[in-house]
Amino acid sequence: MKNKVQREIPDEILDQYHDGGFQSVNFGHPTIQRVAPKVLAQTGPSKVVDSIQQVVRDTVRDGMTISFHHHFREGDFVFNMVMREIIDAGYQNLSLAPSSLTNVMNDIVVEAIEKGVVTNITSSGMRGTLGDAISHGALKNPVIFRSHGNRARAIESGEIQIDVAFLGVPNADEMGNANGMDGETAFGSLGYALMDARYADKLVLITDDLKPYPNTPASIQQTEVDYVVKVDKVGDPDKIGSGATRFTKDPKELQIAKMVNEVITHSPYFQDGFSFQTGSGGAALAVTRFLRQSMIEKQIKASFALGGITKPTVDLLKEGLVAKIMDVQDFDKGAAFSMRESPNQQEIDASWYADPANKGAMVDKLDVAILSALEIDTDFNVNVMSGSDGVIRGAIGGHQDAATAKLTIISAPLVRGRIATVVPAVTTVITPGDSIDVLVTEIGIAINPKRQDLKDTLAKVPGLPIYSIEDLQKRAENLVGRPKPLAFKDRVVALAEYRDGTLIDVIKEVQD
Amino acid sequence: MKNKVQREIPDEILDQYHDGGFQSVNFGHPTIQRVAPKVLAQTGPSKVVDSIQQVVRDTVRDGMTISFHHHFREGDFVFNMVMREIIDAGYQNLSLAPSSLTNVMNDIVVEAIEKGVVTNITSSGMRGTLGDAISHGALKNPVIFRSHGNRARAIESGEIQIDVAFLGVPNADEMGNANGMDGETAFGSLGYALMDARYADKLVLITDDLKPYPNTPASIQQTEVDYVVKVDKVGDPDKIGSGATRFTKDPKELQIAKMVNEVITHSPYFQDGFSFQTGSGGAALAVTRFLRQSMIEKQIKASFALGGITKPTVDLLKEGLVAKIMDVQDFDKGAAFSMRESPNQQEIDASWYADPANKGAMVDKLDVAILSALEIDTDFNVNVMSGSDGVIRGAIGGHQDAATAKLTIISAPLVRGRIATVVPAVTTVITPGDSIDVLVTEIGIAINPKRQDLKDTLAKVPGLPIYSIEDLQKRAENLVGRPKPLAFKDRVVALAEYRDGTLIDVIKEVQD
Repeated sequence: MKNKVQREIPDEILDQYHDGGFQSVNFGHPTIQRVAPKVLAQTGPSKVVDSIQQVVRDTVRDGMTISFHHHFREGDFVFNMVMREIIDAGYQNLSLAPSSLTNVMNDIVVEAIEKGVVTNITSSGMRGTLGDAISHGALKNPVIFRSHGNRARAIESGEIQIDVAFLGVPNADEMGNANGMDGETAFGSLGYALMDARYADKLVLITDDLKPYPNTPASIQQTEVDYVVKVDKVGDPDKIGSGATRFTKDPKELQIAKMVNEVITHSPYFQDGFSFQTGSGGAALAVTRFLRQSMIEKQIKASFALGGITKPTVDLLKEGLVAKIMDVQDFDKGAAFSMRESPNQQEIDASWYADPANKGAMVDKLDVAILSALEIDTDFNVNVMSGSDGVIRGAIGGHQDAATAKLTIISAPLVRGRIATVVPAVTTVITPGDSIDVLVTEIGIAINPKRQDLKDTLAKVPGLPIYSIEDLQKRAENLVGRPKPLAFKDRVVALAEYRDGTLIDVIKEVQD
Repeated sequence: MKNKVQREIPDEILDQYHDGGFQSVNFGHPTIQRVAPKVLAQTGPSKVVDSIQQVVRDTVRDGMTISFHHHFREGDFVFNMVMREIIDAGYQNLSLAPSSLTNVMNDIVVEAIEKGVVTNITSSGMRGTLGDAISHGALKNPVIFRSHGNRARAIESGEIQIDVAFLGVPNADEMGNANGMDGETAFGSLGYALMDARYADKLVLITDDLKPYPNTPASIQQTEVDYVVKVDKVGDPDKIGSGATRFTKDPKELQIAKMVNEVITHSPYFQDGFSFQTGSGGAALAVTRFLRQSMIEKQIKASFALGGITKPTVDLLKEGLVAKIMDVQDFDKGAAFSMRESPNQQEIDASWYADPANKGAMVDKLDVAILSALEIDTDFNVNVMSGSDGVIRGAIGGHQDAATAKLTIISAPLVRGRIATVVPAVTTVITPGDSIDVLVTEIGIAINPKRQDLKDTLAKVPGLPIYSIEDLQKRAENLVGRPKPLAFKDRVVALAEYRDGTLIDVIKEVQD
């Protein structure tokens, strides 16, 4: 079948994995029976066990689904420590269901795949050697890519049933009360990991800082934890944060950020009490800075900032320009540490952040989202997953989720080096064009034709160049030429779900 | 059958309601499959509905189980507002499953019973006209009394399946983010209500203070809430707190409190890092005051204080004598308001507080619990439920739960007026003698024979009179005589569960 974004989904894939292909960005109002874990009652004085080796042998069995979080990002030591023990113990046919996979995890996952230890993976994304291996057909079954909100939905509905979750934390007490805010390796919000904590049958905490009992605030609570393992170091503090709190000096990025701010501040959503998600990276930080200036000038304050949080956003909170930060993850130390002191920086889990299958997620109330793209096509469909060579090197993250905002802006350069960003058809559709409102490039913007209202409003903004997306695509093509169509093998190596669990695209094995 | 505390449980009751009679205070290590709610997905901008009448008609159906919390205590307006609409709409055969029932709810429950609206009740307890009506056989089916920890267990296991929870809160936003700490009718911890929030299929919040979105801290989160109703007033602030923050001047109570403190401070548990639960009421506050003095003198600090929290306990936190308060409910305004400012006053839910069927409750780590009694018998079995006339006028509360502490002290006068407290056999067994260590009365203490270690230790305390419990019982009898045995009809009007869900006793209809 062809789904609603014109992607061919092989029937055998549909039969095997899903109810259907992507239909609509509207989730509707289904009633969903949630699942719940099996809980082994404990009343003992301590859950501390001697080693990861011991706890792996006590909990893991062939064929199980195991999970991790990626809040330590490139500073993560826990994933490798646990996977080493699992591989060495010789388990087979495991499903890996982390919130995402960072580069520091690549080599050991490739090893686990080669040895038959891991035969299924679901993740927000992957990059580097792992993305390359998957794209070349290394894994037995197709990877399933899910957004952060979709992962929460899939866990709640039982589509992802976690047998054992291994969660690294910067602090914990002997019973498992833990948070992400305190300690040398603090990363702030435990947002994604809170889903694993609530739904896994077995929960193993791994920490390098055993605190006196009871440890509070307890984002993860002892009632959810089966084992606590003390190790020397859970992560490298210097690599946990992106560190990218510097304002970009790239003139192209600055030009885009300025234009994004023009679009936001001239939209009908820029009024007292508006809300926004900017994300991370130099360009996003520049948007935050321009937005701050506009908010001061127009005396407009935001009700909340959402998503992955950075120091500049925390500064807006401290200045009183933002009333609340709803925090599912923190991208730098400044944001991580401030959570401890700011009662208005509320930790939220992935379900509250973005799950369409609950009683209301934060993204449902989001006015403005600024998102990136590897590619965007003339239907406004966005690819954040595969490179122009067809190889997996990205992550859905909260892209599909935040794109449901009232004003979703894709901020992207027209071309990157010799590669066009605005293309006739994206390699992989991750976020459907239906949920994208405006594309901002360094030379001007394109507005989704379904948003005639925005077109009328933004046409009045002096000095804001408006193009059709076809024009922008042609300009990109004029700059870098039209690449040869990619050739793929028939075998499907990965499935991209939309946030509701339907299939929005498949990724096929690349030709060498 | 006769259960392990020698109570006769009729076979037809056992067949109909339970797996078995009470066996042991040791819960063991069963694996329990938790249940989960059915969730109707919502993405709309607001959940505010016009009236309780509307939301009752939208949600309630004949035969459903509805629930409430009792954190507003005698200042509660919500229960009556909702039950009025339910009765007037003519629903039948409802099960009522509140965390407890306070006196202000009595009349309308009696009315609902008389009209066939309510035919089943489970609660922590009841008093006054309602207890009287139940004891005289008013309700179609036996009431089931459950401790706070047992209610959490029963909700998690599906024994209590809540169709609609109506929860009053002192603040909420349009999506249902709410806490108990802010606003004119603040009561502090939402501990008991958090169970309903997480497990009810439909959750209705009722508030008199609609806050700007998003409202934080969000003890109850929008992901759990279906409807928000704004009313004029959810409660009477003056009646929410017990107000009893005054130190008792009753010489008998002072004498008991002093002796309780002697027992604690001479026990092996009184050392740095110990933990305690004192409860509320003038005598409990006196214990807290004596304990404070001893802690200062001996330079001993507590790791945590647990349970229903009072201002004097919060003061210990501020003084640094207690490191953490683990707070499932607050008994006065001082404790309620301090929660907002004290990061070390951690809100905990009823499961974390006391559920034996989770991965570790706070009571499992509790060193010292001071509890009250209506009656205690020579097997140390305690009754906190029925009066000496056999009429229901009490509540289990956390009694069975906290009694699992390493040192459980019953603090009670030998007699109250012309009624003995220490008796040959309690009218209703609520907490088994196996979990009670010491009885403290105004004339001296009795130590459970199974605690020879404590006997040896406390025998060395100068001026601490130690009796056998049989001696204390005889002294009580000498003071007030032996009452005629109570006569009951055959019909069982209430069941008392132990915290593991087994039947510890039944309560029969009283003779007029």
